[in-house]
Amino acid sequence: MIIILKPDIDPDGSEVSQLLAYLKQFPDVKTKLSGIKGTSRVVSEIYLIGPTHNVPKDVLQSMPGVERVVRVSSKYRQIGKHGGQLDELGFEYNGIVFNQNSFHIFMGPCAVDTLENVETMMKHMAEYGIATARMGAYKPRTSPYDFQGHGKNCLPWVFELAGKYGIKVIAMEVLKEEHIEEIHNALQEAGNPTGVMLQIGTRNAQNFELLKAVGSQDIYPVLYKRGMGLTLEESLNACEYIASEGNRNIVFCLRGVKTRLGDPHRNLVDFAHVPVVKRLTRLPVCIDPTHSVGTKDLAPDGIYEIFHAASQGVVAGANMILIEFHPRPEEALCDGPQALTLQDMDHFIQDVSISRRAYKERRDLASRMSLTKMQS
Amino acid sequence: MIIILKPDIDPDGSEVSQLLAYLKQFPDVKTKLSGIKGTSRVVSEIYLIGPTHNVPKDVLQSMPGVERVVRVSSKYRQIGKHGGQLDELGFEYNGIVFNQNSFHIFMGPCAVDTLENVETMMKHMAEYGIATARMGAYKPRTSPYDFQGHGKNCLPWVFELAGKYGIKVIAMEVLKEEHIEEIHNALQEAGNPTGVMLQIGTRNAQNFELLKAVGSQDIYPVLYKRGMGLTLEESLNACEYIASEGNRNIVFCLRGVKTRLGDPHRNLVDFAHVPVVKRLTRLPVCIDPTHSVGTKDLAPDGIYEIFHAASQGVVAGANMILIEFHPRPEEALCDGPQALTLQDMDHFIQDVSISRRAYKERRDLASRMSLTKMQS
Amino acid sequence: MIIILKPDIDPDGSEVSQLLAYLKQFPDVKTKLSGIKGTSRVVSEIYLIGPTHNVPKDVLQSMPGVERVVRVSSKYRQIGKHGGQLDELGFEYNGIVFNQNSFHIFMGPCAVDTLENVETMMKHMAEYGIATARMGAYKPRTSPYDFQGHGKNCLPWVFELAGKYGIKVIAMEVLKEEHIEEIHNALQEAGNPTGVMLQIGTRNAQNFELLKAVGSQDIYPVLYKRGMGLTLEESLNACEYIASEGNRNIVFCLRGVKTRLGDPHRNLVDFAHVPVVKRLTRLPVCIDPTHSVGTKDLAPDGIYEIFHAASQGVVAGANMILIEFHPRPEEALCDGPQALTLQDMDHFIQDVSISRRAYKERRDLASRMSLTKMQS
Amino acid sequence: MIIILKPDIDPDGSEVSQLLAYLKQFPDVKTKLSGIKGTSRVVSEIYLIGPTHNVPKDVLQSMPGVERVVRVSSKYRQIGKHGGQLDELGFEYNGIVFNQNSFHIFMGPCAVDTLENVETMMKHMAEYGIATARMGAYKPRTSPYDFQGHGKNCLPWVFELAGKYGIKVIAMEVLKEEHIEEIHNALQEAGNPTGVMLQIGTRNAQNFELLKAVGSQDIYPVLYKRGMGLTLEESLNACEYIASEGNRNIVFCLRGVKTRLGDPHRNLVDFAHVPVVKRLTRLPVCIDPTHSVGTKDLAPDGIYEIFHAASQGVVAGANMILIEFHPRPEEALCDGPQALTLQDMDHFIQDVSISRRAYKERRDLASRMSLTKMQS
Repeated sequence: MIIILKPDIDPDGSEVSQLLAYLKQFPDVKTKLSGIKGTSRVVSEIYLIGPTHNVPKDVLQSMPGVERVVRVSSKYRQIGKHGGQLDELGFEYNGIVFNQNSFHIFMGPCAVDTLENVETMMKHMAEYGIATARMGAYKPRTSPYDFQGHGKNCLPWVFELAGKYGIKVIAMEVLKEEHIEEIHNALQEAGNPTGVMLQIGTRNAQNFELLKAVGSQDIYPVLYKRGMGLTLEESLNACEYIASEGNRNIVFCLRGVKTRLGDPHRNLVDFAHVPVVKRLTRLPVCIDPTHSVGTKDLAPDGIYEIFHAASQGVVAGANMILIEFHPRPEEALCDGPQALTLQDMDHFIQDVSISRRAYKERRDLASRMSLTKMQS
Repeated sequence: MIIILKPDIDPDGSEVSQLLAYLKQFPDVKTKLSGIKGTSRVVSEIYLIGPTHNVPKDVLQSMPGVERVVRVSSKYRQIGKHGGQLDELGFEYNGIVFNQNSFHIFMGPCAVDTLENVETMMKHMAEYGIATARMGAYKPRTSPYDFQGHGKNCLPWVFELAGKYGIKVIAMEVLKEEHIEEIHNALQEAGNPTGVMLQIGTRNAQNFELLKAVGSQDIYPVLYKRGMGLTLEESLNACEYIASEGNRNIVFCLRGVKTRLGDPHRNLVDFAHVPVVKRLTRLPVCIDPTHSVGTKDLAPDGIYEIFHAASQGVVAGANMILIEFHPRPEEALCDGPQALTLQDMDHFIQDVSISRRAYKERRDLASRMSLTKMQS
Repeated sequence: MIIILKPDIDPDGSEVSQLLAYLKQFPDVKTKLSGIKGTSRVVSEIYLIGPTHNVPKDVLQSMPGVERVVRVSSKYRQIGKHGGQLDELGFEYNGIVFNQNSFHIFMGPCAVDTLENVETMMKHMAEYGIATARMGAYKPRTSPYDFQGHGKNCLPWVFELAGKYGIKVIAMEVLKEEHIEEIHNALQEAGNPTGVMLQIGTRNAQNFELLKAVGSQDIYPVLYKRGMGLTLEESLNACEYIASEGNRNIVFCLRGVKTRLGDPHRNLVDFAHVPVVKRLTRLPVCIDPTHSVGTKDLAPDGIYEIFHAASQGVVAGANMILIEFHPRPEEALCDGPQALTLQDMDHFIQDVSISRRAYKERRDLASRMSLTKMQS
Repeated sequence: MIIILKPDIDPDGSEVSQLLAYLKQFPDVKTKLSGIKGTSRVVSEIYLIGPTHNVPKDVLQSMPGVERVVRVSSKYRQIGKHGGQLDELGFEYNGIVFNQNSFHIFMGPCAVDTLENVETMMKHMAEYGIATARMGAYKPRTSPYDFQGHGKNCLPWVFELAGKYGIKVIAMEVLKEEHIEEIHNALQEAGNPTGVMLQIGTRNAQNFELLKAVGSQDIYPVLYKRGMGLTLEESLNACEYIASEGNRNIVFCLRGVKTRLGDPHRNLVDFAHVPVVKRLTRLPVCIDPTHSVGTKDLAPDGIYEIFHAASQGVVAGANMILIEFHPRPEEALCDGPQALTLQDMDHFIQDVSISRRAYKERRDLASRMSLTKMQS
């Protein structure tokens, strides 16, 4: 059950204390005060968790300060789309807005390798006005004998370069709680020249302790990648862990699922779930065509299959793309063969913008059609 | 091994007989003469099947009438894209052209039910100038106690109506060899007012005897649907059965694959394989968003998830769409809940055309980019 | 709904006609008279198909000749285990009894190749007193260019040899209706020296027309193999097609399922479903360890993994094993690498008998335990 | 590359320092000294990691103290079965021996709930002489709103009770590094009345940081559960992480895999992989029939399907069983419905012992058969 408070109700004011006092008569029901920053106003909600079936909705609804009371299904309490709530869980971070209408391309190498490569990459991004990057300092590798990333040592110069080239947000995977601190300290020491979106990788999709760790801080937003062997429901449930700890600045990322039915792609591209996630939750949706497709095959129409997958996600409304580029893929320490080169960047950006424009046309068409139906 | 003959070489002429005589010294190698009608010319090819590693390519290459000799990998001998062959296996049927550049929407109910519904449907299609329909007379149902289709009894009036409303091709599933004859007889008796594309359903994707049956006739083209539990390779191999019997007028249809990872959709949409099929084979590629998605859920942007899936296939170059419409879905004897209504038709057609246009822009962009790279 | 008639009620007598007359008032309910030969008596049942919710159970129950009336769930009407019916669908064929307590090993090569090999195989089987064989004349192969079996030409000498060596039943795959006739004719012409169990292969698990064909004759029992990409429920539904046509002499065969999670085995062994099939249906259950495992790897305890899988099926109550043996696996035209040799036969038979004995001990233990619980 | 030292070579002696000195000329090759306690002797091995193709095997082989030099495939360097090494990675912990021949039943509730229930459970186990338990203090739950386990608070009394009832080892899941410390501290404070095997749950199967944490200590052995969506190879690679950090006292546990093809079981039982894991690695193999089957359905032979699955694992050589029992399943805070009751315990133990005896007979038969073959 969620009590949505009227705009600008003071969380420390009398209305809220009156509500909390009333709710004390239901000892098994816990309450949690939660502030959502919408694009135009701050909305406070009180979450009631536990056996709420005896709590009378009508009584609550008539109490001072209450705008609406919503009984939520047990699923996706915090990230779900329940009737009567704010339409979306949008947020702004370091000057960049993320919600179900926004659109950003996060590009960069799989793993940070040399300073030179990182600088070359960022310089090119700056030329195209791209302020959102992806690059891993900590890499989870299937074999313990593979390159595991440079770890915290590379953070100072990565952040410095990001500041130099105007990168506002870097999506960076974390594998354990300590990594969050390391990133935080490095950013602080560098004077916060850029921002970081903490990425939860597919292998940690049900590492609930890590989810709680990123969820219990609210400085950095979280990019949650679907588990490659998990259903959408299982993944959204895991995502709910993050939100249940307090941090709802989450982007949900589709990255393909593992099944032999996806061959010859590395994973079976699951971007038909883009509109599903937008329907079931209030989260912005990201796609990762690089890891989904996993090869650099060129279709006979002269378009990389990675581009095709990206286009499929975007034309259905994706809000964010993670895409691997590398100045010298042949030297990359991780996933080189599937990385695009700097020569492909211009083509990719133009290709994506065709698809994004098509999506907007489709959305406008749907809105006109809906009007027509209502009028007829 | 494939011997591609020079244009307009007479299959009964001296060049071919000389070649066949030469090949007699390899007793285990069988030959098969095969004529492909391309869009501009007729090309004859001689397929060599068996242990061809001893057959000298150079000798053949220098013989009269020979344009090129291609050693093919063992995979997809007839439907595959081997270097040096015609770019595609296009064909024309009843005035409609099918190839890797064409684009058609096949719409209609899952199963033929009443004459009135079929007529209403076709009348609407005619208004939008759509001459390609889908409707089943024979339905394979999971339970033996469900409606199994009207069978051959409905064929006469279905074909008559099709003729009346200018439908040129109806995609119609066949479940056994006799159905081909029944359809052929009914068409003949009605004076061929329309055409039929024989559809192989996903449950018969490895019913090799049925594949041979549709492959050993060349009057009707074949729409082959991927097996819902088969890899792309297994399905393309099955498709090769059809071609190996002589009929290469085949369209390959993606219709989603069965895995719990596709929930809440009925299947996991596999349209990222559209460019893959176009890369591996010379077949036109169809998508079936209705059965892939399997629900009529509406995304928050006002667009059905079926539309989104269709858009994803089209933006990546699909050549054909199978889509279910029904004038009264609530009365449909089969798959009613997922069928679109006549009120959705206008929206669907406009939505698809946005995506098709975007695909063409993407293709043109790729072609410009490729020129730029070559010049630089 | 099923009306179970009293023992020895004449299907053509007055009780049955009175029942049918009464049921005429429910025009949408179809009736089907069905005789099951149990081990001790013949039981006739009348199946009511259609909207039976209005048919009063009490009235029927009180009519002459009626022993019991059972409302069945919609699932598995004929093959299912509904309360109050006969415990199992056992049958006897050519002197061999098949039911949920019987146990038989069907051995032989994947495909019939040479007369010499078939004779060598059968001679060895005769030495061990094994009267049940498996060998294919018609082979469905993934590629159209692979060996497809000798077809009807080999049937005369295969059946003659079977008669000579005392083989009572051969499990033989059929791919289309004509194959049933070919087998029937060949058996007739040879004077029925042996019997055939018609096998439906995994690729035809949802070839409903073929299922109807084997279901609409009652001379030959049917061995139905689970679809490698189908759930148990989907496969049992398909099996119900056979029974719904009249033939309930069916054995259900587990043969592993396709998923990358089964690697390095060819399929993921699904023999934990042995007790499930026995719980949900009245069919005897067969296992096919050869195709499930698909390799001849030897575990470090000196036991082939194929033996281990067989043992797992048997210890959980399997009623039948299909197992591939070949006198010269290196020469086999099909699936040679996974076939056991004649040197392995003695070991296999002894190994299986240990597991079968263990199963019987387990069953007896459960029965004693159940008695103890009831008495306490 | 592995250098196996002669028995009783002193790791600090001159032979080893000579070897290490020699290896310094290959700067990219790292060395790691590793002591395996076999059942009869201590064997030291030196692992060479990195580009070892240039390291001359012959030279090493002739150096003092060296017994054998083995080039290992890149797979499963530490846990794999490479020719010439010790046959198994057995170990003894708190008086209990674990290897590929041992056999133990670990029983108990899914999660620790009340002291009374835990005591009742342990008292019963003691009566049957069972000294190995399973019970979770930290529970990873799919929803953040479900019971998450009592955590470290219950450890003191759980360990005390274990000591009282003679439990030697408790398998206990850990979700993060801190949990290892908490367990260690609680055991120390209680005076080590029992032992703990650290369990890695299926959701953390690729949580590499956690794997490194349990791998970098060598006090507690590790029970690694296969990832429910991972191939065997992916899971064994993850398991290698543990060993690569130094701790090779690992048991590998099969617990079923997630696929819709497993329905109606919660997972598809994967115990046909028991002999595969024993062939590919030197680890003892555990099975978890409770979570694999996930229901308490009773087969018509009076045996629970959980028992059948257990029997299938044991008859193929499993070394350990994890099985859930609960004194009052209806009150359990986690997974109650699938837990066996104390009334089932006697039956279960007897049932398992039939299957274990059958396995031993099968192993002995194989060994006799192998002798016969060698003599003939």
